[in-house]
Amino acid sequence: MKFKNLSHTPRIGILGGGQLARMSAYAAYQLGFEVVIWETTPASPAANITKHDFAGSILDDTLLRRFADACDVITLENEFIDAERLHFLESLGKKVFPSSKTIGLIQDKFVQKRTLARKGIPVPKFMEIKGAGDYLRAAKQVGLPFLLKSRKMGYDGYGNATVFTQKDFSDTIARLQERHSALMGESFVNFKKELAIMVVRTKKETCVYPVVESIQENHICKKVIAPAAITPAIAASATDIAVAAVEAVNGYGIFGIELFLTQNGELLLNEMAPRPHNTGHYTIDACVTSQFENHIRSVLDLPLGSCGMTHKSAVMINLLGKRNGAGIPTNYHEALADPGTHLHVYGKSSSRPGRKMGHITVTGKSRDNCMMKAENAAAITDL
Amino acid sequence: MKFKNLSHTPRIGILGGGQLARMSAYAAYQLGFEVVIWETTPASPAANITKHDFAGSILDDTLLRRFADACDVITLENEFIDAERLHFLESLGKKVFPSSKTIGLIQDKFVQKRTLARKGIPVPKFMEIKGAGDYLRAAKQVGLPFLLKSRKMGYDGYGNATVFTQKDFSDTIARLQERHSALMGESFVNFKKELAIMVVRTKKETCVYPVVESIQENHICKKVIAPAAITPAIAASATDIAVAAVEAVNGYGIFGIELFLTQNGELLLNEMAPRPHNTGHYTIDACVTSQFENHIRSVLDLPLGSCGMTHKSAVMINLLGKRNGAGIPTNYHEALADPGTHLHVYGKSSSRPGRKMGHITVTGKSRDNCMMKAENAAAITDL
Repeated sequence: MKFKNLSHTPRIGILGGGQLARMSAYAAYQLGFEVVIWETTPASPAANITKHDFAGSILDDTLLRRFADACDVITLENEFIDAERLHFLESLGKKVFPSSKTIGLIQDKFVQKRTLARKGIPVPKFMEIKGAGDYLRAAKQVGLPFLLKSRKMGYDGYGNATVFTQKDFSDTIARLQERHSALMGESFVNFKKELAIMVVRTKKETCVYPVVESIQENHICKKVIAPAAITPAIAASATDIAVAAVEAVNGYGIFGIELFLTQNGELLLNEMAPRPHNTGHYTIDACVTSQFENHIRSVLDLPLGSCGMTHKSAVMINLLGKRNGAGIPTNYHEALADPGTHLHVYGKSSSRPGRKMGHITVTGKSRDNCMMKAENAAAITDL
Repeated sequence: MKFKNLSHTPRIGILGGGQLARMSAYAAYQLGFEVVIWETTPASPAANITKHDFAGSILDDTLLRRFADACDVITLENEFIDAERLHFLESLGKKVFPSSKTIGLIQDKFVQKRTLARKGIPVPKFMEIKGAGDYLRAAKQVGLPFLLKSRKMGYDGYGNATVFTQKDFSDTIARLQERHSALMGESFVNFKKELAIMVVRTKKETCVYPVVESIQENHICKKVIAPAAITPAIAASATDIAVAAVEAVNGYGIFGIELFLTQNGELLLNEMAPRPHNTGHYTIDACVTSQFENHIRSVLDLPLGSCGMTHKSAVMINLLGKRNGAGIPTNYHEALADPGTHLHVYGKSSSRPGRKMGHITVTGKSRDNCMMKAENAAAITDL
């Protein structure tokens, strides 16, 4: 956008009010901008730190019009809002980053894989699943076991299941179809490592953060090691794939790209997210420019900041809720005992087991030392 | 404070809504807390990023009661609020950091100097000035030329003047007494460098940031070089003086201590500020823990984070308003052209010549290189 002759401070609208929106807001504020939050319910972590927020249904045209009127440009913190709704916002004359077209190619995971595969990007074998009768065809086409996935709305393992038998298949279809009708099948990849890369792209430039290793537990990103312990050749290939994927969906803004490094050294794109990503949280404390600041810069079409690391090594560990109760640690003093640990708490009103409540980042020269310190701090924190 | 069995997210009240409060709010948010802002007028930079703000006179007891009711603990972003008003907040049962007693020893610069001198801390010669008849006594006691200062409310050179003659003296007294009756005289120090140190202190620990060099233009901090190019012995003495000064006022919270390094290598404490300080802004991008995060930690009596630098060198340059107009750069694209420059814009509604609108920090291995990049970015930014 243009910054001459402004009548007001530029306002960035964010669809979603969770931790990704909240951390994006910090970056927007540091650059002097304002944020406007839309979320289904009020008092979300991001809405709590702005004067401008709207709560209600994404299907409420009047509400969306008021939201759009309050913004100069719009972005999002998840890929779950139907592309048609984003198109509605665009039809009101507002730019949305990433665009409704890009989101339309990403939010349906079958369409995402098909789009990427057509551009020659390596992905696991995948296929559409129409119903319980598709078991044998799937077993043949993508192999056994395979993943049965909801095409839309899946995250952190919700909406996914591994299928070993016809019974698994039928049961899972019945369960998943309760919420989401469209399904797909995908090869089960026996990977050596899960890798991830953040790519940020504007009309003028594309910047790429280092390749990191993502360690998942129960399908949720638990730890991130930056940079990943891989060869320069694999890092270069992974980076090329990540950039090609963003280009394949004509993506502008920031994207998190997850890849499998298979046992035989092959790289396969697992999923892409059109937004700041959990595997990029380490960038706040370990890179020249955080993923959130570059997200904001890209949305305003500003020059991007350096994606380089300022430390040799960094480890990020998610703080998943261990209990029901307050949204901040009850033992805050112990949680901050190590003077070199970076603690981030997302300002959620309450914790519950497994909920993403915050994260810890430790930077340093030795990966093992960072991991040890981060694990200690995460273990001790009662959140 | 205690974090067990909380009924709500802890709220930190800040008296003042300018850039220091705003940057403190970012740090509070990252740790999961909320902030409550009091400022004389609404829509201040810090009030704009919270749901909880109060605007009105500091003399309005009802307003202050409502403010106090909304906070768990209270801090401040300047030393201009009369200690009696802080005492009023304390009388409502709220802890104020720094306390009304500490502020009472700092906000009157004559009392500040007397308190420090009595504890053996080296300060320039100083004396009380009662009226125009004191010229000869002052010339004899603190030497010519000397500084005539308002004892209260002075900052960035406002309320100060250098006196060379009886006429300077009489004219300045007439001018300063229009606003502030109490005055003091102080030796004019022919310094080699101005140094500054941030000290943060809780009941359990005292942490000290590196000694930096502050370069002033027209009595306003313009540039900060971290660390200062001084000998380890001078750095150690400066640090000892800074810690002793905070202890002398029984200070808890964060303090900015400004010192003169004289031509003959002597250190003299110039002024102390009981809050985050302009000379500590570099810590956001160049230290493990920013001055703002340690400010928030100290106010909540949490363990302090490391004050160590994460880069060999850093240069901070203030962006002082060059024009009347919008509070963000009209040439934002040029301002961010260097991918390694950290731009901070304070979200003020408008710019005017000389107003502190933001700052730039550049980190790196070479001081000269950081200075060159920071100067280029500051020169180009139209703010």
